Amino acid sequence: MHPPSQPNPNRARLLISCEDRPGVVAAVSQFAYEQGANVVDADQHTEPDDLRFFMRLEFDLPELPDRLSALERAFLPVAERFDMQWQLTRAARPKRMALLASKQDHCLQELLWLWKKGELEAQIPLVVSNHPDAREVVAPFGLPFHHLPVSKDTKAEAEASLLTLLREHQVELVVLARYMQILSADFISGFGHPIINIHHSFLPAFIGANPYAQAHDRGVKLIGATAHYVTAELDAGPIIEQDVHRVGHRDAVADLVRIGRRVERTVLSRAVAWHLEDRVLLHGNKTVVFS
Amino acid sequence: MHPPSQPNPNRARLLISCEDRPGVVAAVSQFAYEQGANVVDADQHTEPDDLRFFMRLEFDLPELPDRLSALERAFLPVAERFDMQWQLTRAARPKRMALLASKQDHCLQELLWLWKKGELEAQIPLVVSNHPDAREVVAPFGLPFHHLPVSKDTKAEAEASLLTLLREHQVELVVLARYMQILSADFISGFGHPIINIHHSFLPAFIGANPYAQAHDRGVKLIGATAHYVTAELDAGPIIEQDVHRVGHRDAVADLVRIGRRVERTVLSRAVAWHLEDRVLLHGNKTVVFS
Amino acid sequence: MHPPSQPNPNRARLLISCEDRPGVVAAVSQFAYEQGANVVDADQHTEPDDLRFFMRLEFDLPELPDRLSALERAFLPVAERFDMQWQLTRAARPKRMALLASKQDHCLQELLWLWKKGELEAQIPLVVSNHPDAREVVAPFGLPFHHLPVSKDTKAEAEASLLTLLREHQVELVVLARYMQILSADFISGFGHPIINIHHSFLPAFIGANPYAQAHDRGVKLIGATAHYVTAELDAGPIIEQDVHRVGHRDAVADLVRIGRRVERTVLSRAVAWHLEDRVLLHGNKTVVFS
Amino acid sequence: MHPPSQPNPNRARLLISCEDRPGVVAAVSQFAYEQGANVVDADQHTEPDDLRFFMRLEFDLPELPDRLSALERAFLPVAERFDMQWQLTRAARPKRMALLASKQDHCLQELLWLWKKGELEAQIPLVVSNHPDAREVVAPFGLPFHHLPVSKDTKAEAEASLLTLLREHQVELVVLARYMQILSADFISGFGHPIINIHHSFLPAFIGANPYAQAHDRGVKLIGATAHYVTAELDAGPIIEQDVHRVGHRDAVADLVRIGRRVERTVLSRAVAWHLEDRVLLHGNKTVVFS
Repeated sequence: MHPPSQPNPNRARLLISCEDRPGVVAAVSQFAYEQGANVVDADQHTEPDDLRFFMRLEFDLPELPDRLSALERAFLPVAERFDMQWQLTRAARPKRMALLASKQDHCLQELLWLWKKGELEAQIPLVVSNHPDAREVVAPFGLPFHHLPVSKDTKAEAEASLLTLLREHQVELVVLARYMQILSADFISGFGHPIINIHHSFLPAFIGANPYAQAHDRGVKLIGATAHYVTAELDAGPIIEQDVHRVGHRDAVADLVRIGRRVERTVLSRAVAWHLEDRVLLHGNKTVVFS
Repeated sequence: MHPPSQPNPNRARLLISCEDRPGVVAAVSQFAYEQGANVVDADQHTEPDDLRFFMRLEFDLPELPDRLSALERAFLPVAERFDMQWQLTRAARPKRMALLASKQDHCLQELLWLWKKGELEAQIPLVVSNHPDAREVVAPFGLPFHHLPVSKDTKAEAEASLLTLLREHQVELVVLARYMQILSADFISGFGHPIINIHHSFLPAFIGANPYAQAHDRGVKLIGATAHYVTAELDAGPIIEQDVHRVGHRDAVADLVRIGRRVERTVLSRAVAWHLEDRVLLHGNKTVVFS
Repeated sequence: MHPPSQPNPNRARLLISCEDRPGVVAAVSQFAYEQGANVVDADQHTEPDDLRFFMRLEFDLPELPDRLSALERAFLPVAERFDMQWQLTRAARPKRMALLASKQDHCLQELLWLWKKGELEAQIPLVVSNHPDAREVVAPFGLPFHHLPVSKDTKAEAEASLLTLLREHQVELVVLARYMQILSADFISGFGHPIINIHHSFLPAFIGANPYAQAHDRGVKLIGATAHYVTAELDAGPIIEQDVHRVGHRDAVADLVRIGRRVERTVLSRAVAWHLEDRVLLHGNKTVVFS
Repeated sequence: MHPPSQPNPNRARLLISCEDRPGVVAAVSQFAYEQGANVVDADQHTEPDDLRFFMRLEFDLPELPDRLSALERAFLPVAERFDMQWQLTRAARPKRMALLASKQDHCLQELLWLWKKGELEAQIPLVVSNHPDAREVVAPFGLPFHHLPVSKDTKAEAEASLLTLLREHQVELVVLARYMQILSADFISGFGHPIINIHHSFLPAFIGANPYAQAHDRGVKLIGATAHYVTAELDAGPIIEQDVHRVGHRDAVADLVRIGRRVERTVLSRAVAWHLEDRVLLHGNKTVVFS
C-alpha cells in the first residue's frame, strides 16, 4: 500500500497563510536559516484584493524525523507574531488517500498507474466503488477494494458505511475518480478532510448531469474538465486545475466522451499530485497553486 | 476600400445544405465535372442526429464572371432534385463588411491590420464607433469613419441611423469588434444579414457584463473568448470559434483583461476570416466550420 | 485477442491516391452511388506542389462481407481510368498489430488500455519485449507475451526471431511503444509492413539518444513527442502526429521525462488509432492525415 | 517617446544571482524588511545541476528616487558576503529600446501597438529598418525612424552607422523584429547590451534561412517560433520563449507563413515584455524566466 518511490526522509514543507505584514518573509527565512534548513523550493503570493499572504517553503533538514516536534515548537513564536495559519508536513509521510469510482474507470486507472510509477505521493488504504467492475481494475495493484452499492433508498446507509470505512483507515483525502453519486452536505462535513472531484466540463459551464451532451447541444468548439474541491454546493467548490481540448462539428457526443476521457485523466491527476505535494492553498472559494 | 490582395477572378464557392440522400455527392461532383470546373477544395459533413448534409466546394472555372448566371441556371435542377439550400459565391467579389467598435480598440486594430495584409477577403465601406477615439485608429487605413454616439435615451434613434448607414453602404456583414452596446431584436431582424460578435469569455460561462471579473471571482484556471453570430438572445447565438489561455493566482482582473485581449483578437479574426471565405454554415443554433 | 467493441460489419473504407485529373471525384462518387453505398464520411486533398490527389471514403453497404470481391471488381475500371493507387478495407476486419516494448512501459500500458476500451481497431496477436518486466503489464489483458532479449552480439539473431514471430502471426502493423532497439534496414524491408515509432522529442529537434537531456541542455520552453513511420534513416520517417507541453527553468531532466511520458502516450495512441482507421496516407516522406 | 502608462515611482526590482549558500534568502529578506520595503512579488530558483541561486524581488519603497543610492550602498555588504551578481532597477525608469525591422512588419506593428497600450515598459528612441516601407508603419506612433539600407558591400559600414546610432541614443536593448540581416560578432560585442531576436521556427529545429519551407518539407504537424538572445553563433543563443501552432496537410508554405506570423508576434512580444520587466536572468546559455 506504499508507493514504490523513496522520498527524502529529511524533506519538509511549511505552508503559511496570514495577513501580509512587513517582515513576514524575513522572519520565516531567518527561522529556516537558524534551524539549518536547506531550502530547495520557495514560493509566495500576496492577494492584492485582501492583502492575504501565502507561502510554501520546501526544505531539507538533517535528522528531520527526530527534530520535527522541536521544529514546530521553535516556529510557534513566529506563527503567533503574524497570526498565521500554518502546517508543517514531511514529504516522506505520504497522505492516506481513498479513491472512489463508479462504472467509468479511466480516471481510477490513471491514478493507480501514476501511483505505481511513484508520481503520486500517497498511501492508498482502500478503493471503493458502487459498481463491482472496478474490482478487476484494482486487483493488479494489490490494493483493498470495497464494493459499496448505492441506491436511492440506501444512500444514507451507504454514506454512513463509507464514512466508517474512511475513518477506520484514517483517510486524509478522498478522490472522486468519476464517482457518480452526489455526496450529502452531512457526509462532507462529517468526513472533515478534503475531497477532490473531477467534473467533465469547463466549469462553470455545464454544471450538473451530462455535461458532454450539454456541450454538444451548445455547439462549443472546446471541451474541458475541471478538478475542484467538493463543497456542499454542486460543482461550485474551489477549482484546482482545468484543461480543454478542441472539438468540431464532426464530433458526436460519443466522441466528446472519448476525447474528454483523456482531458479528465490529465486534469484530475495533476490536481491530486499537487494536493499531495502540499502545493494547493485555499483562499475563500479559490485556490493558490504553487506548481 | 478594396483589400490589396488580388483573388483569382475564376474562383467560385458552392455551399450546400440539404437532407442527406443517396446520390447527392455524385450529382454535385458530376455537375462540377460537366461544367469543366477544377475543384481545389471540397469538404462535406452529415450530422448524424438529423441526417442533415452540408457541403462546400471551391473550384476554378475559366471565364467565371461571364458564365456565372448560366452556371446557376445549370445547377438549379440538381438543387431542386435534392431540395437544397445553396449559394454560389465568387472569391473575387469580397463581401461588404462594416466594423463596429467602442473605446476598446484592440479587435478593431487587429481586423484592420489583417485586412491590409490581405488576410480578410472583404471590402470595408465604413467603420462605426460610439466613441470618437476610434477615428485615430481608422485614419491610417483610409477608411470612412462614422462617430455615432449612443446614450440610454438615444438608443432607438442611434440604431435607426446605424441601419440607414448599413443599408446605404449595402453592408452584408457586421462585425462587433468589442462594440459595447446590445443591439435590439428589431435591429437584428431589420438588418437581416449576419452579425458576428466577440464575447470575452468561454461561453456559455460568464454571459453578460464584466466576464473577466466574473472569471476572477470564480477562480478559473483558463480564460477564453468566443466569436458567435448575434441573435436576439444575449450571448446565445451560434458559436463560430473559441480559444483559451492559462491564468493563475498571480493574475489580477487587469491581467485577465490584458491576456484576454490577445485571445479576443485571435478568435474574432479567425471567425471573420472563415465567414468571409464562406467556410461557416449554420445548423440550427450551431455551426459547421469547414476550416 | 479481439477488441471488445463490435464494428459495423457493412462498413468499408476506400483509400485513393492518384494524379489530380478532372472527373476523379465525380467518377468515385458515381461508383459509390451506383453500388448503393451510404457514404458516412468523405475527405479529399490535392497537394498543390505536385497535383497529387488523395481521397478517403467511408461508407456502409448492405451485405458488404458477401459483396466485397464484386465491389473490388466493379471499381477496377475507375481505378484504371485514373491510374489510382487504391485500397478497400473493411472496418470489421481489424488489422493485426504487434506491440514492441522495452523497460519503459507507459506507452505499452496506454495502448493496451485504449485497446481494451475499444478505441483501437486492432487484433493484438502478440506483444514482444526485450525486457522481462513487460510481461506483468500484459498479463491482465490476456495477450500472448514474448520475451526476446537483445544484446550487441545477438542483435541479428533477435531480429530474425522477431521477423519469424511477426510472420507466423501475420502481423500487418508493428508499433514501437518505446522499444529501445534500432531496427536494421534489412529488418524493415524484410517485414514489409508499416512500423510506427514514438520519438520523445519534437522532431527534427533532438534526433537520437536522450532527447530530454538534449532539450534540457538547450533550454527549450516546450518539450514534445513525435509519432512517425520507421524508415532506414533514424528518426527521419514520415511524421504522423506531434504534440508539445510547456516546461520551465524549474523542470529538471527527470521532470521532462515525467511530463514527456504523458505527451508520448497521447501522441502515439492518436497516431496508431488513425493508422488503424485508415486515416493516414503516405505522400513521399510526408503524411496526409484525414482525421 | 515615453510609454503612456504611469508606473509607480517607488517601485524597484532587485535581481540576484550567486552560489546557493545557507542564509542568502534570510539576508535579502532581512535587508528588505529593515529598509521598510513593501515586497509585492518575490521569486527564486536554485539550479540543481550547479547549485546556482537566482532571485527576483519586486518592492515598493517610499521616496525611492531619492533613496536609490543609499539603498545600493546599504545592499553592498549583503552582496559581498554572498559574492552576488546583482542589479537594482526602478520600474519608473523604462529601458531604452531600439526596434530593427526589414520588409516584414508584423512583429514591428505588434510591438508598437503593445507599447502604445502601455504593455511594454520601454522608451523607444528610434526604429531602424533596412527597408523604407517600415517608415509608414512607424509614422502614426510619432517615433523617429531611420532608413539604413544594407547590401553585401556596405554591410560593415551599415553596422558601424547602426552602432553609432544606438550609442547616440543610449540604447540598452535591441529587438530584431524580423530584421533579416545577420549581425556580426564584432557588432554584438561592440554594442555590449542584450539583443533579442525572433526566429520563425521551434529552435533548435530549422536553424537558418526559410524555416517555414524547411518545416513544410519535413511534414511537421506543429510550427513554432522562438525568441532568444542573440549570440555570435546563429540561432543558438539563450531561449526566452517559444510557442507553436498546429498545421496539417492542407497548409502550404504560404499558410505556414501566415499562421506563423501570429505565433511570432505573440512569442516576441512576451519575451520583450519579460525582459523589460527584469524577469529574465541568464544562466550559461539558458534563461531563468520569473514570469
